[in-house]
Amino acid sequence: MPVINVKMTHEDGGASKEQKEEFTKKIANDFEEVFKRSSKNAVVIIEEVNTDNYSIGGETITNIRKNKA
Amino acid sequence: MPVINVKMTHEDGGASKEQKEEFTKKIANDFEEVFKRSSKNAVVIIEEVNTDNYSIGGETITNIRKNKA
Amino acid sequence: MPVINVKMTHEDGGASKEQKEEFTKKIANDFEEVFKRSSKNAVVIIEEVNTDNYSIGGETITNIRKNKA
Amino acid sequence: MPVINVKMTHEDGGASKEQKEEFTKKIANDFEEVFKRSSKNAVVIIEEVNTDNYSIGGETITNIRKNKA
Amino acid sequence: MPVINVKMTHEDGGASKEQKEEFTKKIANDFEEVFKRSSKNAVVIIEEVNTDNYSIGGETITNIRKNKA
Amino acid sequence: MPVINVKMTHEDGGASKEQKEEFTKKIANDFEEVFKRSSKNAVVIIEEVNTDNYSIGGETITNIRKNKA
Repeated sequence: MPVINVKMTHEDGGASKEQKEEFTKKIANDFEEVFKRSSKNAVVIIEEVNTDNYSIGGETITNIRKNKA
Repeated sequence: MPVINVKMTHEDGGASKEQKEEFTKKIANDFEEVFKRSSKNAVVIIEEVNTDNYSIGGETITNIRKNKA
Repeated sequence: MPVINVKMTHEDGGASKEQKEEFTKKIANDFEEVFKRSSKNAVVIIEEVNTDNYSIGGETITNIRKNKA
Repeated sequence: MPVINVKMTHEDGGASKEQKEEFTKKIANDFEEVFKRSSKNAVVIIEEVNTDNYSIGGETITNIRKNKA
Repeated sequence: MPVINVKMTHEDGGASKEQKEEFTKKIANDFEEVFKRSSKNAVVIIEEVNTDNYSIGGETITNIRKNKA
Repeated sequence: MPVINVKMTHEDGGASKEQKEEFTKKIANDFEEVFKRSSKNAVVIIEEVNTDNYSIGGETITNIRKNKA
């Protein structure tokens, strides 16, 4: 029954359809397993965010990636 | 005064401009009617989500639509 | 099918159970009416926020209410 | 690296500390496994919502539970 | 350590990369200054929303802009 | 005009009213300064989250704090 919202950066062409399906199934299973509740109505929404728009510690992921390279 | 966030799947070409205007007005009115408070500052944000990125019960909407067809 | 998240201030003892039921039903109906899609899986989540934690234009609602009084 | 927000109803005394730890670890692992990316900075936030404030298909969970009983 | 989500309208070609970097850094600094806590893990996510999908007081920003012109 | 949502852990008695006012004002100012747009309708919502419900890298903040002590 939960609503789960995932925000991740869009990198290397983005998450594939198969990855999103797999991730979604795993989370629904985890929910059932851990909380012993049905995931029949579990909603999972995945949002992919441009690396210019996602920052950690005041640095955009774009710049974090650049500085590492 | 509320902030209302709507996440819906992007299907059949997406919601039209007119539908979004209408939905937004209705929600603002509902808020006034039910809670007896002003909706002058009510913010409604509509996000349309790819059917690959939205799942219910561990199945993406893309697959749910396919299995129904 | 949408997920709708409502954040409103908690004032005057808070929204009643009946108001929340009514608001929720209205939004589900609006969704069906405007977008011609089923609201069978529509999730509406209402969050009531302390007036110290909600601000508009840089002023908390607590202070906006005080200045108006 | 993702930010994952989980909204679930607060029922039967609420999720235990142990369940929240376990769920959080599982999601972080799933993320690594499926997307082959580090979960070092993965943030998971769990919010438990009163059953009066969470509705599906226009019915609050409070009422859905009551009608089933 | 906070997660900060910013939803703003996409106007005039959108926010520039430099503006997003600057805004993100300022918010991380504010957090440190005001709360005396590290912003090392602060996540800031900026989402730009089409003016048709963002409304205030029941009017979309698209229409608010048009009526002002 | 933006909507800004801040989720931070509730620690040491929580953020004070004054801190929340100050943070809110700073963010509204930053927005004006960086994006050259009015913050008249800027909404900032601060949510304080129990350290059991907030995790980084698969560890709850409760446990991260404990392991550091």
